[in-house]
Amino acid sequence: MTFKTPIRDMRFILDHAAGFGALEKSGAFPELSGDLVDAILEEMGKFCDGVIAPLNEESDRNGAKLENGVVRTTPGFKEAYKQYVEGGWSSLAFPEEAGGQGLPATLAVALVDALNGACMSFAIGTTLTTGAVKAILHAATEEQRRLYLEKMVTGEWTGTMNLTEPSAGSDLSAIRTKAEPVGDGTYRISGQKIFITYGDHDMTENIVHLVLARLPDAPEGTGGISMFLAPKFHVNEDGSLGARNDAHCIKLEEKMGLHGSPTCVMAFGDKGECIGTLLGEENKGLRNMFVMMNAARLDVGVQGVGVAERAYQRALAYAQDRKQGRAPGVKSGDMVAIYEHPDVRRMLYSMKTLTDASRAICYANAVAYDLAHSAPDEKTRKEAKAMEELLTPISKAWSTDRANDVASLGVQVHGGMGYIEETGAAQHLRDARIAAIYEGTNGIQAMDLVGRKLQGDGGAAAKKLIADIHSEAMMLKAAKRDDLVHIGERLLGAADALLQSTEWLLEATKKDQTHVLAGATPYLKQFGNAVGGYYLAHGAKAAAIAAHEGQDPAYYESKIALTKFYADNYLTEAVALTDAVTAGAEAIARIDPEVMNG
Amino acid sequence: MTFKTPIRDMRFILDHAAGFGALEKSGAFPELSGDLVDAILEEMGKFCDGVIAPLNEESDRNGAKLENGVVRTTPGFKEAYKQYVEGGWSSLAFPEEAGGQGLPATLAVALVDALNGACMSFAIGTTLTTGAVKAILHAATEEQRRLYLEKMVTGEWTGTMNLTEPSAGSDLSAIRTKAEPVGDGTYRISGQKIFITYGDHDMTENIVHLVLARLPDAPEGTGGISMFLAPKFHVNEDGSLGARNDAHCIKLEEKMGLHGSPTCVMAFGDKGECIGTLLGEENKGLRNMFVMMNAARLDVGVQGVGVAERAYQRALAYAQDRKQGRAPGVKSGDMVAIYEHPDVRRMLYSMKTLTDASRAICYANAVAYDLAHSAPDEKTRKEAKAMEELLTPISKAWSTDRANDVASLGVQVHGGMGYIEETGAAQHLRDARIAAIYEGTNGIQAMDLVGRKLQGDGGAAAKKLIADIHSEAMMLKAAKRDDLVHIGERLLGAADALLQSTEWLLEATKKDQTHVLAGATPYLKQFGNAVGGYYLAHGAKAAAIAAHEGQDPAYYESKIALTKFYADNYLTEAVALTDAVTAGAEAIARIDPEVMNG
Repeated sequence: MTFKTPIRDMRFILDHAAGFGALEKSGAFPELSGDLVDAILEEMGKFCDGVIAPLNEESDRNGAKLENGVVRTTPGFKEAYKQYVEGGWSSLAFPEEAGGQGLPATLAVALVDALNGACMSFAIGTTLTTGAVKAILHAATEEQRRLYLEKMVTGEWTGTMNLTEPSAGSDLSAIRTKAEPVGDGTYRISGQKIFITYGDHDMTENIVHLVLARLPDAPEGTGGISMFLAPKFHVNEDGSLGARNDAHCIKLEEKMGLHGSPTCVMAFGDKGECIGTLLGEENKGLRNMFVMMNAARLDVGVQGVGVAERAYQRALAYAQDRKQGRAPGVKSGDMVAIYEHPDVRRMLYSMKTLTDASRAICYANAVAYDLAHSAPDEKTRKEAKAMEELLTPISKAWSTDRANDVASLGVQVHGGMGYIEETGAAQHLRDARIAAIYEGTNGIQAMDLVGRKLQGDGGAAAKKLIADIHSEAMMLKAAKRDDLVHIGERLLGAADALLQSTEWLLEATKKDQTHVLAGATPYLKQFGNAVGGYYLAHGAKAAAIAAHEGQDPAYYESKIALTKFYADNYLTEAVALTDAVTAGAEAIARIDPEVMNG
Repeated sequence: MTFKTPIRDMRFILDHAAGFGALEKSGAFPELSGDLVDAILEEMGKFCDGVIAPLNEESDRNGAKLENGVVRTTPGFKEAYKQYVEGGWSSLAFPEEAGGQGLPATLAVALVDALNGACMSFAIGTTLTTGAVKAILHAATEEQRRLYLEKMVTGEWTGTMNLTEPSAGSDLSAIRTKAEPVGDGTYRISGQKIFITYGDHDMTENIVHLVLARLPDAPEGTGGISMFLAPKFHVNEDGSLGARNDAHCIKLEEKMGLHGSPTCVMAFGDKGECIGTLLGEENKGLRNMFVMMNAARLDVGVQGVGVAERAYQRALAYAQDRKQGRAPGVKSGDMVAIYEHPDVRRMLYSMKTLTDASRAICYANAVAYDLAHSAPDEKTRKEAKAMEELLTPISKAWSTDRANDVASLGVQVHGGMGYIEETGAAQHLRDARIAAIYEGTNGIQAMDLVGRKLQGDGGAAAKKLIADIHSEAMMLKAAKRDDLVHIGERLLGAADALLQSTEWLLEATKKDQTHVLAGATPYLKQFGNAVGGYYLAHGAKAAAIAAHEGQDPAYYESKIALTKFYADNYLTEAVALTDAVTAGAEAIARIDPEVMNG
């Protein structure tokens, strides 16, 4: 099956749902123009559809392999990666002073969307490098920048994040990897890391590992973790490659999906000779990690968007092609395409609206990121920063949960064929499943939302966003079209329910944190449903104007109809979630696990 | 990981949720007693835990293989199957006059539950034979019964259902397989069937294929389909095996999961020599098929229950074992088991209550089946029949959708380890995925519910059940315990919402069938949520009495707490679904698929 980067929908969501226009207005990107965005999206589409997408099925069947200590990627990956670098895709949104193109991160997020739609296994490798570059930009010494930055910005070298150890997954305080000063400013690193994405591969000459480890005198807990930079090959003063470092992939995990992405067990210093340098301050490694991780969290949310898009396109194509049964009310005659069956359309409309809602959330998050980092005035930066932080866990968790829903519906649309690997629908479900887990499980995201994000500012950012949703709802309710009024009513219901949950959580914070933790997951779902509907509603309003003006009414009317579908199915669901949020700690009161054993 | 058949919970649900006591009371099973049920469940548990469960992981890694035209099952399957036959498990609920043990089908359903928990790939083979036996009991000639029935009742031979063809999946009217009279009372069958579960295997000496095909002069459509019996090996008059029939597995599908279950492409009559006999009347094959299929639909629902149970047990064990982080509010000290984290308990409680709710629905469905077939008085039989028919699509679709939710949560509880195949959690998700598809996709089930089931009796059976839910809710609201009152309130909300949807659908029927089809899937979900809560609430009431009497309060209190959890999460969800049901045909109004292409 072919994949087509949904350029028109991406542009629609950028402009009419996610507020991309604010970037032009802000003056932060003087060279940005509508034409430039069009040109970039078009080139992006050509590259992703033509070069990356054809690798997707092969990446599943002929995934990464560890052979004689070397990781071999799927045939075609290396050549495609070369084109990715040559096309300048890696450097799109990095600062010009670092060798980048200085474009908005939002466009890089659109690229991540398209790349993941084309081939999630390929795309994830590029995302990791982006995170590593951000950490280096944030914390590196002049020397480290000189040796590593440019090659990573261009993508000539890739980066990795080495956090997890067998006993330190979500709880990084348990990290045991050691780093001992050699005496010459370098450190000898020793320890094993697991789940290292693209920890080794054959696509580039060098790989730059960012490794969390403890100095000999480091305090216990997360306050004793430092970050180190340990390249696969040492880099000489002149930038040429030196000796092989003692950092090796010793095992590849056999995963449910994402076979094209090598998930490595990495051994650092098995021979006592892994040498690295400190990145940032001693014992302040988590700070860098969060720089890297926050960017990565948004990117993982966007992975969800991309894989959902691919699953949707495949299901839509199948539904147009596969003939079974007759249209409702028709008793005889030829079989019709299953797209004509209401229940099949229901699945496809669900897939489409959930994909677009998560796309809108992630793009809005990216716009907030850009404004937070680049807007000329401080007030805008500050407000945008609060929005960026609030949206990040929602982008990550809601989009990836929904990607799982969408990919599963994609299998269902195919009927029995969906369960056969040859069809390809199952791959998307198997691939999508990891996104709800890595870069902080979705449960961790929910705790981040009700914890640091909600309580950090006493609910200010959340309440501001809810007030915006409320205003949008009131505006829609005053519209002249019945469908917009209906959407407005549903949105109002969701906004009110979300406000109720939010206030309950803020109140509960004062009493018992367990109340808050118990409500975290349904709250994040409610927030995502509501805010996704908000952005779609914003788009529906713009679509109504465009349709009224006679611009491609079939297209714009479909945006309104799909938003209404979303409103009746997911904004209504949001309303009910207040009950689950406010059930409180009692709802998950501890039951003896022995009793739970039946 | 070991599996433990949840005997106590099964018994609890039989007795206190699903109304198993009605079978004893009915007088239909004079030998039935509590002690007998205990003894059967205990033996069942020993067999499933000790013999079948250890095969599960091997069935995934070393699935069925087609070698030189012969299907080889997972090592160990053949021996385990022998024990299944020798233990008399196959014949449990078949009538005594057919060589069975004459026990309630409800106990066979409990067996299906346990077998699927132990190993879904193994269990599905036995289910197919049950369906084939039912079709033979319903329609076979004396001669067919004499030659085939006993061996199939004992399980010495297995049965298959051959319905699907490449162009005839959900739409059986498109079946093209032919059967031509030979002149001696037999028929020459020719055609290809796909997705034939256990179409060939090495566990038994013979396999009895039931095949849908068309006679030469058959009318078009489903009114021209007949059923034929075509064994793998012909059977001589004395019961001994004769020549090999021309019915062969020519390909095994490579599936997302359920690797241990051979999914065959079957070629009938490739050499023009597949000989079979007519089973039932000419052109009335669909009638037999529905006998077979209705039983199979309940069994597939129960598959969902079983695989959900297995996923739950694995996740619970992991959550007790895996240590990460500290308990809420605790800043230092040793890491605790992740079971201590509220969000992890939320996942486990979701898994447990969804599994038990679907178990209760399926068991209640089985009780209705037994009463419908065996109750001495006609009124009971008739009422039970209506209930059985109403519950069947819900058992099938809701239980399997929820099994997917549960299996996915099971992966999530494991964090990163859940995505690694070695852990085993991913297998359950891959296995569970098919259950929502086969034996009529869940969309087909939803259409059956709003079509034949709801409209068939003008909503009488549905309204009666809703009235029962309403009464139960009112009773709970009058209870002396706050938690029961709370459950009662939530149940009332769900009952009212379900009634509203039901009346809307019945009204919509009069106008436009598209309205009804558009609301089918959310209606089935709403119905399942509500009726699952009803049965759990019934159990909670009994648990309150038991706890009050001082019987194992930890166990019985947990039943109440989990029902309350279900009420706050899933009965509330049911309330919101009315909006999705009643959005009507407009919600899924056709959008040009080209526009949907973005």
